Amino acid sequence: MQALSPYPIGKKSLLKEIYEYERSETLRGFLKTEFEARVARAQFLMGQNNVDALFLTTEPEIRYFTGYLTRFWESPSRPWFLILPQSGKPIAVIPSIGTVLMAKTWISDIRTWSSPDLEDDGLTLLAETFKEVIGPKASIGVPSGHETHLRMPLSDFDRLKSLVPEMNFGHDNGIIKSLRLIKSEVEIKKISTACEIAGRAFERVGEIAKEGVRMDSIFRAFQGLCLEEGADWVPYLAGGRGALGYGDVISPASIDPLESGDVLMLDTGLVYDGYFCDFDRNFRVGSCDPKAEYCYQKLLEAVEAGKQVARPGYTARDVFEAMDKIVTGGTGIGDAGRLGHGLGMQLTEWPSLIKGDLTELKEGMVLTLEPGIEIAGGGLLVHEDNFVVRPGEPEQISPSAPSSLWEI
Amino acid sequence: MQALSPYPIGKKSLLKEIYEYERSETLRGFLKTEFEARVARAQFLMGQNNVDALFLTTEPEIRYFTGYLTRFWESPSRPWFLILPQSGKPIAVIPSIGTVLMAKTWISDIRTWSSPDLEDDGLTLLAETFKEVIGPKASIGVPSGHETHLRMPLSDFDRLKSLVPEMNFGHDNGIIKSLRLIKSEVEIKKISTACEIAGRAFERVGEIAKEGVRMDSIFRAFQGLCLEEGADWVPYLAGGRGALGYGDVISPASIDPLESGDVLMLDTGLVYDGYFCDFDRNFRVGSCDPKAEYCYQKLLEAVEAGKQVARPGYTARDVFEAMDKIVTGGTGIGDAGRLGHGLGMQLTEWPSLIKGDLTELKEGMVLTLEPGIEIAGGGLLVHEDNFVVRPGEPEQISPSAPSSLWEI
Repeated sequence: MQALSPYPIGKKSLLKEIYEYERSETLRGFLKTEFEARVARAQFLMGQNNVDALFLTTEPEIRYFTGYLTRFWESPSRPWFLILPQSGKPIAVIPSIGTVLMAKTWISDIRTWSSPDLEDDGLTLLAETFKEVIGPKASIGVPSGHETHLRMPLSDFDRLKSLVPEMNFGHDNGIIKSLRLIKSEVEIKKISTACEIAGRAFERVGEIAKEGVRMDSIFRAFQGLCLEEGADWVPYLAGGRGALGYGDVISPASIDPLESGDVLMLDTGLVYDGYFCDFDRNFRVGSCDPKAEYCYQKLLEAVEAGKQVARPGYTARDVFEAMDKIVTGGTGIGDAGRLGHGLGMQLTEWPSLIKGDLTELKEGMVLTLEPGIEIAGGGLLVHEDNFVVRPGEPEQISPSAPSSLWEI
Repeated sequence: MQALSPYPIGKKSLLKEIYEYERSETLRGFLKTEFEARVARAQFLMGQNNVDALFLTTEPEIRYFTGYLTRFWESPSRPWFLILPQSGKPIAVIPSIGTVLMAKTWISDIRTWSSPDLEDDGLTLLAETFKEVIGPKASIGVPSGHETHLRMPLSDFDRLKSLVPEMNFGHDNGIIKSLRLIKSEVEIKKISTACEIAGRAFERVGEIAKEGVRMDSIFRAFQGLCLEEGADWVPYLAGGRGALGYGDVISPASIDPLESGDVLMLDTGLVYDGYFCDFDRNFRVGSCDPKAEYCYQKLLEAVEAGKQVARPGYTARDVFEAMDKIVTGGTGIGDAGRLGHGLGMQLTEWPSLIKGDLTELKEGMVLTLEPGIEIAGGGLLVHEDNFVVRPGEPEQISPSAPSSLWEI
């Protein structure tokens, strides 16, 4: 299957990567140097911000520095911790159920306890590790800003602080965000592969969706197509249908059948090697209302306008404004609240394409441009594609969208 | 398809439910009275514990009281809030992108803002709602115990507290846990349906797994079978292979091919209507090592022993000890840290089958019994089935496990 050989033949710069990938599946396609570089960049910023250690608790934060990839995060029962001191490698403080898998990564200092432990779910071990590694009076950075959360019980966090009373748990000063905003070429390759897989699945929608088929059947079958085309798993699928668009873009499948004249939208975030794509396609079931086609054209136009400013030196706001001008006439925004966002280890990441996000775009950011438009007298139409910010025009990594609504 | 008609014909008590289910997909199979009863139970406990309002931020907490079901939680960008006052209905304070879907639930007081907002992501709206609904000096319960977390940025939580300085944000005193521990019959029916779907997928493993097929292909194809059999989506799949068991039970798929003599384990948590199953099956590829078969028998024996005490009046510890006696001789536990757990809206829920969990079992709890055993000179073997605590023997809701390793 094509999907099992993600690296295009003939790209010489990737040959070493391919070799490593085949030789060591445990690094999931990353060289150890990738993690070392991430750690070095983080530690440089920690020095600048007087942060003695980062304290990380969520899946993407821990995977970013370790390569630790598992679907076991679906279980909320156990907390997982990673300590990144200002020098040296990260230290994993994790439930013993993760020992074997963590030992396959490049992490060597792995401290475990038998979790769940209702009396002490890793807290004493964590406190001892902090004391040993960074000394009694230290400043610990916890990701605390937009799009973050602390994945441990609040009462355990309070107890941890009481176990190391002289340490200061504060903000990470956006260090994690600033690192993850820029993707490496290997990360981009993974996201691109996810996009290609979804693109092949979208090509096959005609096999599974036609007049009379229920939306829940279409959703199930489309996820099957994503898997057949090479997705590791399909964490996200939303969609909608209607002659004049759909009511929203986050609903699960209804039991309504597809009708002739409908626009069908499917929006998927599938995962390949731990990285997401996130884009949608709109299909028409037979002929559709001219208003729907008109709005689809507006969306394509908005993406083109967004692309003109999705370049280094512009801001997230600039991209929003370029698109918003076309979809609302520049008067405001719809219910979605934004017209695109970052993409990578998570379905959505910083930045947000909104008026209030002044993040400066840089090469290596991966963005979705996702304009939505209201159809007069009807619902919504949303179109989404994925891009890498490059010098000059952004590189589109989702396949080219059809120039008119896709007939099935 | 059978999976689309989850309610067995002939059970008269369910006829009204079926009618409502067909009539109103938006309640996802629950009558409004189910949510009203949940709210009433919560409010009774709030009164007993002097909690003026519950403050909820995570997917299962919000869905439990509202029925709000979407896969959009996959996106970490936006916070979502639910306030449950000591009297009256819950109030949703949510991003405007969720307005349409939340309005389909039984919730009527829905307050929205355009999110993401980097300056004020719902905090002012939230503070105003608290002041209006529960007065200036109130005691607010936040789930803070084991298996919980706060799904909002830490710095936003601090800012929220500063906006309502006279309010006290404390522990929810385990109110949410005590409610969710006991499932209603309609919830049990959803979990059972998820189990039936997985059971049918396991029956078909021989179609997709044989000597020479790579594990990642098997994982992809097995998820496809789950979808074909009626899963809405497949949030969790883990597994392993080896002549003498596997190294761990949480790893993603390797690229190794299945070999003759292997034991193949697949462990899935698929979702039907927002509820999980969580069980595994072990298959043998041709003939297997007698040690593997011996250990499989031990696991079945452990489950039988667990069933004898998985009854009202016993504790989670009792079930652990009954199984542990057989898999380790009662000397301790393996790396998994526990031998089963609760199950429902999440892949794993309270209680934990460990020595330290003294939760008293009650009718309506749904448990997985999940003993693991080390194979002498090899890896692990784990078996898992799902049960409802009933008067007398627990009701098994995963299909009967084969009495010897399942040949494919």
